Amino acid sequence: MPSINAERLLKDLRDLRAIGTVDNGVVRPAFSDTDMEARRWLKKRYEDAGLEATLDGVGNVLGRSRNNGPALIIGSHSDTQPEGGWLDGALGVIYGLEIARACAEDPETAGLSIDAVSWQDEESNFLGCLGSRSWCGTLDPADEAAAKGRDGELLSDALERVGLADTPRLGIEEGRYVGYLEAHIEQGNYLEDADEQIGVVTAIVGIRGMTITFTGEQNHAGTTTMARRKDAATAMFEMAHRINLAFPDVANERTVWTMGNAAIEPGATSIVPGRAELSLQFRDQSEALLDRLAGIVKTLASEIDARGKIKVEVSSARTPIKPSIMDDGFQNHIDAAAERTAPGRWRRMPSAAGHDPMVIHEKLPCAMLFIPSIDGISHDFAEDSHDADIVAGCQVLADAAASILLEAQDKNR
Amino acid sequence: MPSINAERLLKDLRDLRAIGTVDNGVVRPAFSDTDMEARRWLKKRYEDAGLEATLDGVGNVLGRSRNNGPALIIGSHSDTQPEGGWLDGALGVIYGLEIARACAEDPETAGLSIDAVSWQDEESNFLGCLGSRSWCGTLDPADEAAAKGRDGELLSDALERVGLADTPRLGIEEGRYVGYLEAHIEQGNYLEDADEQIGVVTAIVGIRGMTITFTGEQNHAGTTTMARRKDAATAMFEMAHRINLAFPDVANERTVWTMGNAAIEPGATSIVPGRAELSLQFRDQSEALLDRLAGIVKTLASEIDARGKIKVEVSSARTPIKPSIMDDGFQNHIDAAAERTAPGRWRRMPSAAGHDPMVIHEKLPCAMLFIPSIDGISHDFAEDSHDADIVAGCQVLADAAASILLEAQDKNR
Repeated sequence: MPSINAERLLKDLRDLRAIGTVDNGVVRPAFSDTDMEARRWLKKRYEDAGLEATLDGVGNVLGRSRNNGPALIIGSHSDTQPEGGWLDGALGVIYGLEIARACAEDPETAGLSIDAVSWQDEESNFLGCLGSRSWCGTLDPADEAAAKGRDGELLSDALERVGLADTPRLGIEEGRYVGYLEAHIEQGNYLEDADEQIGVVTAIVGIRGMTITFTGEQNHAGTTTMARRKDAATAMFEMAHRINLAFPDVANERTVWTMGNAAIEPGATSIVPGRAELSLQFRDQSEALLDRLAGIVKTLASEIDARGKIKVEVSSARTPIKPSIMDDGFQNHIDAAAERTAPGRWRRMPSAAGHDPMVIHEKLPCAMLFIPSIDGISHDFAEDSHDADIVAGCQVLADAAASILLEAQDKNR
Repeated sequence: MPSINAERLLKDLRDLRAIGTVDNGVVRPAFSDTDMEARRWLKKRYEDAGLEATLDGVGNVLGRSRNNGPALIIGSHSDTQPEGGWLDGALGVIYGLEIARACAEDPETAGLSIDAVSWQDEESNFLGCLGSRSWCGTLDPADEAAAKGRDGELLSDALERVGLADTPRLGIEEGRYVGYLEAHIEQGNYLEDADEQIGVVTAIVGIRGMTITFTGEQNHAGTTTMARRKDAATAMFEMAHRINLAFPDVANERTVWTMGNAAIEPGATSIVPGRAELSLQFRDQSEALLDRLAGIVKTLASEIDARGKIKVEVSSARTPIKPSIMDDGFQNHIDAAAERTAPGRWRRMPSAAGHDPMVIHEKLPCAMLFIPSIDGISHDFAEDSHDADIVAGCQVLADAAASILLEAQDKNR
């Protein structure tokens, strides 16, 4: 079975970090000079590893194994947030490279097909998950035509600028892949708090957003008796607090909900509010649980509305994102690999943040592996992980990748 | 005992309404051309009634009785809101004039000293209760020097413009007054709802204003588990709702409280709020009850703060206004007079809005009488009252004034 080279892995991660480094972080937004430099550097690393390397027309860098038979594609994204951490994306990209190299070095796995990849613009400089959408064939041409960078540049102009306007784009090679694997830092404290080393992702959570509006009657805060008032804010406060009391009844320990904004009109200390608006967002890996939470909101809204004083209306504040379920068979392989490298120090867990597998899982089975984030920090220059965890995570994913492909070969035989 | 002349009362009210009339309302803000025209008209009416009339250096118009002995001063203000109702202020001013006339016409009361008055700028064009403050000697020279009209004109320039800059200002004539009486429209629905005609004001309510701040920790709305969150908005929603649940335990039917504004920071749907701020205002005629309400706020704040997640701080958002208690003896006289004119159709009640007696009661015993407002509307062109109520209110205040002064004469004898 493959044995990853810790020194080589860490050196590649540090070399990539040097491209666009600022303080302890990196600034490498999609299609910036540093991003393109990193992609050209990566293409060279793939070539050095014996992979067939391509920088495609949308900025994806793919290192294709020269082997045939069932293949895995392993990677993440090398673009960063405007002020990004050094591991977000980069970790998964270099894991793909190292796993391809480690498998090639072991006679038992040298014949396996491991492709490595860095997707373009996962971090939404121009268009979130641009590269994986393009590869999966689910990139909407209208979205692409409208896409602009944070600095206002059109995506088409950016492609022209970096010399990719006429370069072909890669797509999923029919019949080649058994699935996609991605490793990432956790971006939370769960593993660190539990002193665990590996998270096996069960699903990327779904997200619902609601706007709840309360319509009452604006009035004088001195002369209007409490009995006569139709105070929109009072209904909002009740609704919000009762959501916080009721959601735990159906939530599990990873369900999250946030009321991140509230507006009161007219918003004066001496005027009984005539209108209020509350924003509610909730996330979970189970679509059924999200439905039950939505049901609680509607029940509470109806109950307060039915009193006849304040009109309560619930509307959708965003297109709902369904949970992206990770492949169960892949999870079993990662579980087993984790138990070998980090016995008793791994767990299954959902991903609360979004990743390229949200796009890819519609076309291919996917799995994700998490390693601990120090203090749970991400999207910040201070983002970091311990070397031991970085190394352990790569070994686990390498073992899992090998066992997935060996099993697939057995089935094909 | 005096018998008021309903026709004369209503004609004077309508004549005053004609000065600055717009639609069904009036536009006569302090020191406007229409305000000064109304004050000169009023001075003439006082003279016609046999009173010694003065327009003083701050715009007050006083009609002084030529009688000696214990005196009452009766009136209100003839300036209006920028878009004012026709009775707010004007009603009480014309009541003073009519009561002086009616008392003079009855042999039993012709020797009583009834002074009539219109205070300047009760409605805060330049400085709220400017005229009554000046008369009471409690006008702060610094406040006066800084005072500007809604259109930006300095008060000193306005006095120059209307020719009052060098005119002497009147003050309380030492030893003359037993007290001050004012009638006003209710500006609420209480009397109308109860089909009552007279409100005997017990006190002008006190006002407390508080700002409650909640300090937690800003975080990612996806990756931060509920258990780890320090969500400032969640604490604010709980606090606000529990105030609404707890205040009724100590409030009476006239106590009011309002949470008219709330701010959440940073106020994004996908970010756990790190800070929130809630404004709370409450009003009651009892200082002790206001203290109890403030105590509830502090207890709830301590309880939520003591959980150790969210820091909750309560601070005063304004200079507290103490309740202005109306003279109990005067109230007894008005009660008795009301029972004669409107048997069983009067009640004692607080004033939820502010009036000149808030200033004057610091120097003289005060009382106020309310008549019903149609639909409770005030500070609006649509403000109105029924003629029958206008007439009844004036008769009640005339009877009360006469009996107060006759009693005072008896005591002096």
